[in-house]
Amino acid sequence: MSEFKYKQAIVVRADLKMGKGKIAAQVSHAAVSAAEEARNRHEDWWEAWLEEGQKKVVVKVKSEAELLQLQQEAAKMRLPYALIRDRGLTQLPPDTVTCLGIGPAPSSVIDKLTGELPLL
Amino acid sequence: MSEFKYKQAIVVRADLKMGKGKIAAQVSHAAVSAAEEARNRHEDWWEAWLEEGQKKVVVKVKSEAELLQLQQEAAKMRLPYALIRDRGLTQLPPDTVTCLGIGPAPSSVIDKLTGELPLL
Repeated sequence: MSEFKYKQAIVVRADLKMGKGKIAAQVSHAAVSAAEEARNRHEDWWEAWLEEGQKKVVVKVKSEAELLQLQQEAAKMRLPYALIRDRGLTQLPPDTVTCLGIGPAPSSVIDKLTGELPLL
Repeated sequence: MSEFKYKQAIVVRADLKMGKGKIAAQVSHAAVSAAEEARNRHEDWWEAWLEEGQKKVVVKVKSEAELLQLQQEAAKMRLPYALIRDRGLTQLPPDTVTCLGIGPAPSSVIDKLTGELPLL
């Protein structure tokens, strides 16, 4: 079950009308940016996570408010995170907040924040 | 149109039965791994791409054969790339090849490889 000591969670707003390609691009953006945050601030977490095979979970929330609350909690816990805003050139109004990448960080810490959220 | 001098393409197999959360996780894996390849081999491309805002396109092919052919072309062109195999614990048989991340690299070069492929 928990061979992964480190993981990254990406939280997506399910209340937006995004197609699967759009979701994949936004989630990737969050994954790359949050990983870069981790590399800069917790290089040991980042390295161990890559070595373990980059465990990721993609979960969902129902509103911008829920996403921003998770961001605040991640900040309070001093976790690496990245909040993604879409440029809004295609499917969404400009600067729509679409998703939040948290970690890589120790799985037990990530689970405290996102462990109860449903998978996308 | 082309304010982005660098981009990353992620090519997904559309012939697999993957849900949108699964696709997002696999594409993110490709994005992080190919970006890491670029950082190690073409740090200037990687830095410029991050600064421009990480332009990504997510496109699709219809078979493993098409994906592997793109991989070979990327290798021949000496582009940074990452081929992703799923561990197959959930929706797919073990070691199924799911997607291919190419770049970041100059947009004109990426377009030669993936410019004709439909968006996911």
